[in-house]
Amino acid sequence: MSAQRLSSLAETFGLTLHGAGETSIAGVGTLESARADQLSFLANPKYRSQLADTAAAAVVASAEAVELAPCPVLVSRNPYADFARIAALFEPQPARPPGVHSSAVVSPDARIDASAHIGPFAFIAAGASIGAGAVIGSHCSIGEDCQVGPGCHLVARVTLVTRVRLGARVLIHPGAVLGADGFGLAMDQGRWLKVPQLGGVIVGDDCEIGANTTIDRGALGDTVIEEDVRLDNQIQIAHNVRIGAHSAMAGCSAVAGSARIGRYCLIGGGAGVLGHLEICDRVTITAMSLVTHSIREPGEYSSGTPLMDNRDWRRSAVRFKQLDQLSRQITPKRER
Amino acid sequence: MSAQRLSSLAETFGLTLHGAGETSIAGVGTLESARADQLSFLANPKYRSQLADTAAAAVVASAEAVELAPCPVLVSRNPYADFARIAALFEPQPARPPGVHSSAVVSPDARIDASAHIGPFAFIAAGASIGAGAVIGSHCSIGEDCQVGPGCHLVARVTLVTRVRLGARVLIHPGAVLGADGFGLAMDQGRWLKVPQLGGVIVGDDCEIGANTTIDRGALGDTVIEEDVRLDNQIQIAHNVRIGAHSAMAGCSAVAGSARIGRYCLIGGGAGVLGHLEICDRVTITAMSLVTHSIREPGEYSSGTPLMDNRDWRRSAVRFKQLDQLSRQITPKRER
Amino acid sequence: MSAQRLSSLAETFGLTLHGAGETSIAGVGTLESARADQLSFLANPKYRSQLADTAAAAVVASAEAVELAPCPVLVSRNPYADFARIAALFEPQPARPPGVHSSAVVSPDARIDASAHIGPFAFIAAGASIGAGAVIGSHCSIGEDCQVGPGCHLVARVTLVTRVRLGARVLIHPGAVLGADGFGLAMDQGRWLKVPQLGGVIVGDDCEIGANTTIDRGALGDTVIEEDVRLDNQIQIAHNVRIGAHSAMAGCSAVAGSARIGRYCLIGGGAGVLGHLEICDRVTITAMSLVTHSIREPGEYSSGTPLMDNRDWRRSAVRFKQLDQLSRQITPKRER
Repeated sequence: MSAQRLSSLAETFGLTLHGAGETSIAGVGTLESARADQLSFLANPKYRSQLADTAAAAVVASAEAVELAPCPVLVSRNPYADFARIAALFEPQPARPPGVHSSAVVSPDARIDASAHIGPFAFIAAGASIGAGAVIGSHCSIGEDCQVGPGCHLVARVTLVTRVRLGARVLIHPGAVLGADGFGLAMDQGRWLKVPQLGGVIVGDDCEIGANTTIDRGALGDTVIEEDVRLDNQIQIAHNVRIGAHSAMAGCSAVAGSARIGRYCLIGGGAGVLGHLEICDRVTITAMSLVTHSIREPGEYSSGTPLMDNRDWRRSAVRFKQLDQLSRQITPKRER
Repeated sequence: MSAQRLSSLAETFGLTLHGAGETSIAGVGTLESARADQLSFLANPKYRSQLADTAAAAVVASAEAVELAPCPVLVSRNPYADFARIAALFEPQPARPPGVHSSAVVSPDARIDASAHIGPFAFIAAGASIGAGAVIGSHCSIGEDCQVGPGCHLVARVTLVTRVRLGARVLIHPGAVLGADGFGLAMDQGRWLKVPQLGGVIVGDDCEIGANTTIDRGALGDTVIEEDVRLDNQIQIAHNVRIGAHSAMAGCSAVAGSARIGRYCLIGGGAGVLGHLEICDRVTITAMSLVTHSIREPGEYSSGTPLMDNRDWRRSAVRFKQLDQLSRQITPKRER
Repeated sequence: MSAQRLSSLAETFGLTLHGAGETSIAGVGTLESARADQLSFLANPKYRSQLADTAAAAVVASAEAVELAPCPVLVSRNPYADFARIAALFEPQPARPPGVHSSAVVSPDARIDASAHIGPFAFIAAGASIGAGAVIGSHCSIGEDCQVGPGCHLVARVTLVTRVRLGARVLIHPGAVLGADGFGLAMDQGRWLKVPQLGGVIVGDDCEIGANTTIDRGALGDTVIEEDVRLDNQIQIAHNVRIGAHSAMAGCSAVAGSARIGRYCLIGGGAGVLGHLEICDRVTITAMSLVTHSIREPGEYSSGTPLMDNRDWRRSAVRFKQLDQLSRQITPKRER
């Protein structure tokens, strides 16, 4: 991407410019690291102190920043989002031309749109279909009866096992596995009996699925990820889970079987949600918390204890074990 | 699978039928979703209220359900297990015919049973052996001196690094890595020194290993998974761990080096077991608990705190830090 | 490796020998399992009681062990490290000869050192470079503009997505994904907007990265793993994290975006570090703890509660919810 004039960026993205429109922007950077030909931004007030000293050519920021900034400002009501849009101009886009790489193996019973890109060592099984403009990167495996919608991008080494249906523009990072068997077991006369997993996985439009994330297919019925859900790396979604539109989950979080998560939820890193429960819309779960019961009110929820020096922690931990007894000592019996 | 008469299912699976034997069953479903030609089941009492309204053609259930059900009942003492057996009749089984795919790379020093299926882009290294009827899916890598027993099924993209020995009928889901180096390090003059990992991994008959699960090989001696162990997705098993027969671990749980887990244990999702300790038979660990000491009595064990509204949680969390001091205030010195 | 005389090992590794130098060593084992031609070691005092009964031909141990051992002793000030060096003599080293496997796909715009080994089904994209003596195992994918330094070993199925730069002698286990998009999102008018991830990943010399570990590339600027960092399996490192030299992280731990971890830190299994904070040098975090604020003093830190019998735990857990109220009852108002 060649350099852009600031005035041209303002016009393209509908932002008000304070300062010299002829300023040339050749890239983007943080307030701290941006060079004199780069655009930066201020969204998190935590970094406001860095504004005065930035060497950036210009910044995207809210109106209040105009007086503090030592450079031109593109005024935005959502500086992070507008910066993201402009930054995308400077993102290298490796060529992924239409066509099937000579090393790929494609079943004669698969349907591949002529505009799709199928990379080296990709395997497309019988009954699979790949939509217009989709990119299937190296070492991907698209199993029987899987559908990849138009504009999807499977970066590399993504495995869709069976009965997986991706909507449009789904982005999946390497190592993700969708449609593996759910973990269904019945104990029978001292041995485990495998419960067949007859359902599939449905992923809505515009979802993003992180590296090494796993989404199992349903036992009876489907596992469903609604549109615009964003999953970070190493997330585990068990069979028959449903995740509502526009929710986002941070790395290493996990949801057990048949749980339903609402829309616009935020699940923190390493958090867990037990099976067969429901979380309503607009719930935030903080990092490494465990959801053990249904949540019916929007809000922020937590479990765990604060980080402490290990010696102090050991003392508190011992007392935690005695907590019921201690409580009984201070609460008169009639009040309990 | 074509439709089955209910009377025929009763006979095949040794169940007592209450109701019309000529009922035709073309598939399976939940009580809530089953259509008029599908079989359902009732195992978890939580779903009993759905029985009266089910549209299912018939259900597998215990004897008490006969009076409540609006349809024929296959009476079972273990409805979930018997339903699983019947459901397996309706599971699509993609063809995995014997033979080596033309794109696979097989070392001349590997032994492949003639009845095994080797899929696209599979790599079988020198000294590896693949047993009768085994299925090695696409993109699998079977490293030096690994043995895959008869009837094993490596779905796709499974990596056996070195010195891995699988028993019969082991099922492994995509992304699993068995036999990678254990994490052995010695600090020496301010730098880490790698400790060679000379052992292997032994997996017993009828185990199941989930997607993206990792099982490291032993440092000295082997990491051992006994027969009929069931591991969900994204589980981490460190070097020299031993897991007893018929135990099951839920997603994202982890066991540190040289820990020994007994038989018939149930390890909840995200739970952790520290290294060099022992857990006896028939222990249940609840989700996201951390096992920090050996367990010598069967039972259920937990750690953590309950989920709370974040503001309330912050208050409790602050008090947790003061817990020893608070306890001292209420417990007279002589009693401490 | 053929058998070695004990006297020769003592000389090679600079250790003092107590006992018969002609003793022949053909392998290594634990104190408990070593056979009469194997070398063992004592480093952890926990295993001292096993010393008297060992059948090992000899042991590596500290000077105090000489009187207790029933066999010759190689006296060491760091028995674990010296044992590791000797054990490496007995590690099988599969051949990885220079050259590109006939099944690999290498872009004409990639640079591959003539001494490097490129395994079956490896894909090397345009602009990538592979250094002298490097080993790229089966099913690896080395993306655009990635650099693999001399002596690196990517065991199998490692994916470097884009802008990843590995120093010398980096060892990466199967399933690891480096350089995937960081998890950057802006909420804009009720939908997520993806924030471009324009940075890369830099990994210093002598690092080890475990199976299925993920290290995202930076949003602006790079994610940096300094030299001699050791990462176990299934670790998640988010964008723009920096991990200081000689730190080690155990399995399933995770670090959120832009956090900085110092040198010589030890992060326990399943532990989490929130984003945008700093941990100074020589900090230990115990297993499954969550770091929620910056740490400025070296030491050991913890969170969580101890493992308890589930019924007892439930009682303590209920009281935890009441903790603020209980505390108020016992602390006079003026002291609060």
